Amino acid sequence: MTVVGRSVFYGRQEGVGRAILLLTPNLQRSGKDGDDADAQRGHDGTMSEPTVLERWQDLAPPARILMGAGPSNVDPRVLRAMTHQPIGHLDSAFVAIMDEVKEGLRRLFQTRNGLTFPISGTGSAGMEACLANLIEPSDRVLVLLNGFFGDRMAQMAHRLGGEVFVVEQEWGTAFDPDTVRKALLRHRPKLVCLVHAETSTGVLQPVADIARLVREQDALLVLDTVTSLGGVPVLVDEWGVDVAYSATQKCLGAPPGLAPVTFNERAIVALKARQRPCVSWYLDALLVHSYWGDDRAYHHTAPINMVFALREALRLIDEEGLEARWARHQVNGMAMMAGLQALGLTLLVREPSHRLPVLITVLVPDGIDEAKVRARLLHEFHLEISAGLGPLKGRIFRFGLMGYSSQKRHVLLALTALGMILQEEGFACDLDAAIAAAQAVYRQHADVKVEV
Amino acid sequence: MTVVGRSVFYGRQEGVGRAILLLTPNLQRSGKDGDDADAQRGHDGTMSEPTVLERWQDLAPPARILMGAGPSNVDPRVLRAMTHQPIGHLDSAFVAIMDEVKEGLRRLFQTRNGLTFPISGTGSAGMEACLANLIEPSDRVLVLLNGFFGDRMAQMAHRLGGEVFVVEQEWGTAFDPDTVRKALLRHRPKLVCLVHAETSTGVLQPVADIARLVREQDALLVLDTVTSLGGVPVLVDEWGVDVAYSATQKCLGAPPGLAPVTFNERAIVALKARQRPCVSWYLDALLVHSYWGDDRAYHHTAPINMVFALREALRLIDEEGLEARWARHQVNGMAMMAGLQALGLTLLVREPSHRLPVLITVLVPDGIDEAKVRARLLHEFHLEISAGLGPLKGRIFRFGLMGYSSQKRHVLLALTALGMILQEEGFACDLDAAIAAAQAVYRQHADVKVEV
Repeated sequence: MTVVGRSVFYGRQEGVGRAILLLTPNLQRSGKDGDDADAQRGHDGTMSEPTVLERWQDLAPPARILMGAGPSNVDPRVLRAMTHQPIGHLDSAFVAIMDEVKEGLRRLFQTRNGLTFPISGTGSAGMEACLANLIEPSDRVLVLLNGFFGDRMAQMAHRLGGEVFVVEQEWGTAFDPDTVRKALLRHRPKLVCLVHAETSTGVLQPVADIARLVREQDALLVLDTVTSLGGVPVLVDEWGVDVAYSATQKCLGAPPGLAPVTFNERAIVALKARQRPCVSWYLDALLVHSYWGDDRAYHHTAPINMVFALREALRLIDEEGLEARWARHQVNGMAMMAGLQALGLTLLVREPSHRLPVLITVLVPDGIDEAKVRARLLHEFHLEISAGLGPLKGRIFRFGLMGYSSQKRHVLLALTALGMILQEEGFACDLDAAIAAAQAVYRQHADVKVEV
Repeated sequence: MTVVGRSVFYGRQEGVGRAILLLTPNLQRSGKDGDDADAQRGHDGTMSEPTVLERWQDLAPPARILMGAGPSNVDPRVLRAMTHQPIGHLDSAFVAIMDEVKEGLRRLFQTRNGLTFPISGTGSAGMEACLANLIEPSDRVLVLLNGFFGDRMAQMAHRLGGEVFVVEQEWGTAFDPDTVRKALLRHRPKLVCLVHAETSTGVLQPVADIARLVREQDALLVLDTVTSLGGVPVLVDEWGVDVAYSATQKCLGAPPGLAPVTFNERAIVALKARQRPCVSWYLDALLVHSYWGDDRAYHHTAPINMVFALREALRLIDEEGLEARWARHQVNGMAMMAGLQALGLTLLVREPSHRLPVLITVLVPDGIDEAKVRARLLHEFHLEISAGLGPLKGRIFRFGLMGYSSQKRHVLLALTALGMILQEEGFACDLDAAIAAAQAVYRQHADVKVEV
């Protein structure tokens, strides 16, 4: 392209024909190379030099085994689903896909709620969508806090203008109904926030009794199912959960980017009774539903290719069967826990029935450098696990076994790699015993399919 | 999996071993088939029947040519980038990719702003992020409204508690600096909202003079560049734009799902001077930047595979060169406009210098059924174009030529298909003339690469 040609046809368009800003911060930071590159590219606006390959390499992310707190690995079929050219967000072919996705999500949440769809954001957007739609300034909000994500709910509720009451108890424990009953009577909230599967602690919170108490007090229950949905039973209708949200990158087996939510009729009554509109236009459930529901009214452009991915993930879940999928997650989790204990490690969650099979937390043994162990797993085995958050930082390891990552081969590799590294770091542990303990679990449940 | 096995190992876990809800709304709606299917699957919770293939088909979206208002088509290289397994959002390999993305976005926005990153949502999330971060209750907000997306900004600003002043003018025209000067003096806003490329009208708004006026009045300018970024010049630093947001699915050439934003130093001062925190935790620019910036602190899980896609799209933009890319969009747009006019159609935007080359609007001729023409283009040619919005509903066609969709072959196909259909629908038009007019533009700018 010549300067003459440009000046002819761009004559009246603002900003064209001027020297454009060639930003090369990376190169500038690197000193001499930066100067060279700047000189080579010049500032004459022609960009005639083939400068690109100085910086951009082919995308080649390392092939990690994702056994941290999420994202988890993704079935290749889900990744392939994303490679279709996008289609229009109002195309009838896309509308049909939206219907399939809504139906798949209803099955997954075990609900008949019509207002069930994916929010166009990650799990935290799902959390914010649920809270922003239900909280008006000065609404009383009770947050049951026993981990990092309860704290996040409290922060969001506070920003949204809610009058927030927090009942906190030890991280690593679950709430019992009595505690909740007392808090309900004392604070008389409109909304109660509870985390089903606390990703920061590995606690699986029993829900049914608490949901009944919340309903008896005429409050609404918002349940965080980010780490549970698709991995352990989430029975929205049976338990009487009013609102729930999740995320695609944990037990659903898709990449991060969408946040399934569901609102029941009691929640919809509350949405419709608001004094003023939801402060967030983007997350307004009734507006978004005018698109995802039967109106098909344009609201925002859905993340088309992520919806393709979610559809394939839901299809895979249906093919596996929900109960078979829960069983796979349960058995792999039990094998991992048995192996970790046989290595001489202590699980953070003391009560066995509250141990989440999809996110397992163990205390870091005395004298072991927690960060070094994680770094060695990552660099020597491409195996990602997670560190502790908040007060548990440096004190625990977190092992995720979610979605496509929940497979026997990963359990055995993780136990082997961890045991080997711990031995080398000076912690005496018995690898044979760990593998034998895991294998005993698998033998006991030989009827469960533990590989995908 | 047998019931016995299940009852053993699930003994203490809530919700397992109970009959699960088998939701088949589609089948239920279809009457007899639904009853059969229900009976076939039963409600014993075993899910032993291979029921899935009754419903799920292989994902096979139609191969559309996307010449509507977005999403646009995506380079196959970008689609392939998404097929990598995700990696952790705190993985050093991902952090390196984040740095490349930030740098690519700074080049694209033509800015040195450090606070430049993609919001984890679609374009409307970008809009909401910019407004929610800058508006506190009772802040005075001036919205320059000449189309659908200005109206959306006004709605969002109102929900966020801003005192909103709207200056509206005819859809299809651009604002002139005098109008803005008067509005600034009258309303003395903290924030001014302007749309650079109005997707609903096809107007390209000159920015530089208005940005100077806004700055002189010590207000902040928020610029919507959803449809302009990557297709026509967006010179954030040179024009003095304080905040801008965009989306990935228009001229950037990636699927929808991310919203690039940039905040300059004046905007950051405003962020830091807030009396109370941003009402949205998810979109809080300073919090999100604690992750995208040098702190690398966990905020939320980024949509990893969408970031892979954006990186590849930015790499492609760098390879093409910004000016060459602008020229491609400009020439294809000019050829399309010339062809449409030669067909005897009237462009909505009367002022030639305000015609957006990437989104072209023409009036629907009298007697032509607008919806039928669009349906025929879609079903006979897999060619998607868009209808008018708001007051322009039914009155205009909208042709997008954005990103990978902006190619000579699409221009010639669209003119041919449209001309043929219009003729068959009873509108006398000269196809030869249309093709000749488009070809004349291409010949005049033979030095510009108009195919990807």
